[in-house]
Amino acid sequence: MSASANARLGEQIWQKMPKINAEFFTLTYGAMVVQLMRDLEDVQLVNEKLEKMGHSIGCRLIDEFLAKSGINNCNEFAETADVIAKVAFKMFLGVSVEVASWNDEKTSCSLLVYDNPLTDFVELPPNINLYYSNVLCGVIRGALEMVQLRVECYFVRDTLRGDDVNEIRLELKEHIKDEMAEEYRRE
Amino acid sequence: MSASANARLGEQIWQKMPKINAEFFTLTYGAMVVQLMRDLEDVQLVNEKLEKMGHSIGCRLIDEFLAKSGINNCNEFAETADVIAKVAFKMFLGVSVEVASWNDEKTSCSLLVYDNPLTDFVELPPNINLYYSNVLCGVIRGALEMVQLRVECYFVRDTLRGDDVNEIRLELKEHIKDEMAEEYRRE
Repeated sequence: MSASANARLGEQIWQKMPKINAEFFTLTYGAMVVQLMRDLEDVQLVNEKLEKMGHSIGCRLIDEFLAKSGINNCNEFAETADVIAKVAFKMFLGVSVEVASWNDEKTSCSLLVYDNPLTDFVELPPNINLYYSNVLCGVIRGALEMVQLRVECYFVRDTLRGDDVNEIRLELKEHIKDEMAEEYRRE
Repeated sequence: MSASANARLGEQIWQKMPKINAEFFTLTYGAMVVQLMRDLEDVQLVNEKLEKMGHSIGCRLIDEFLAKSGINNCNEFAETADVIAKVAFKMFLGVSVEVASWNDEKTSCSLLVYDNPLTDFVELPPNINLYYSNVLCGVIRGALEMVQLRVECYFVRDTLRGDDVNEIRLELKEHIKDEMAEEYRRE
């Protein structure tokens, strides 16, 4: 599908999804990050924990995504990235995201998140190395793993740290072989 | 205002609030509870921690509530309870709640939550003493504290534990004296 078709699909699904108040979510997420900072006492560990929590969320959200979007196959990684940006972000966070900065091989791009609901009302202390919204990277990695794509996903710019936009780098590492599927074909 | 006027107000505000996908919230909240269970290793401590996190969320959500609802005073505690049930629950979770089981003094009642978005897709292991949605009790306590009402608030029935409804008991303990206000009146 084209980018504009994806944007329309994202908007349609978003209208129909059960929702809750964004501020309640933002404050709950914030309370969780504060709790992790207290318990783990190490910013790098918090970044990793948020990513891991996101991963397990993503592994579950993918079912909802596939069922509601009707999308079941992307031929190119560029198509996958566009679906994440225009359908998935819209469907789960209510915001649309821009895809930019492709490498020549079309295996790596950036997701530009201009409006991040997780960070409303949030201020970080200066010089803290926290990737506050790192859960999003984990969600993307977990969800893509379930459709046989191993990716790396990480923040390179973050408005909470003074950047002008949130930029998540998304790199395709490999197509995971579906051993079960191969077994099946051999029979 | 009457209960039905509160219900209309709750619905009106709900329509206008910024929202996010309920399932994404539910899974994020679930990941947080799992994390607390791992870190604290004691169900009672998790119950207390969820309540405390809710308390700090409630202390902040009250501003949004007062600003968006236009409600600035409840004469009776019965009115307060109805506003929580019909306006606040609707505004933040998108669900309406029933007020029941008043004591004779009208200082204690139950909030019956038939549809709790926090517990969608959640199953607890049997015989675990976890109050999974205890954050809600904390939110109510924190928010009411900011309007000079000290309450106790706790789950008495929970569908995750096999009950037929979620019942939150809400008990008014005292009107907190606003020392600053008294000072002001004396001048």
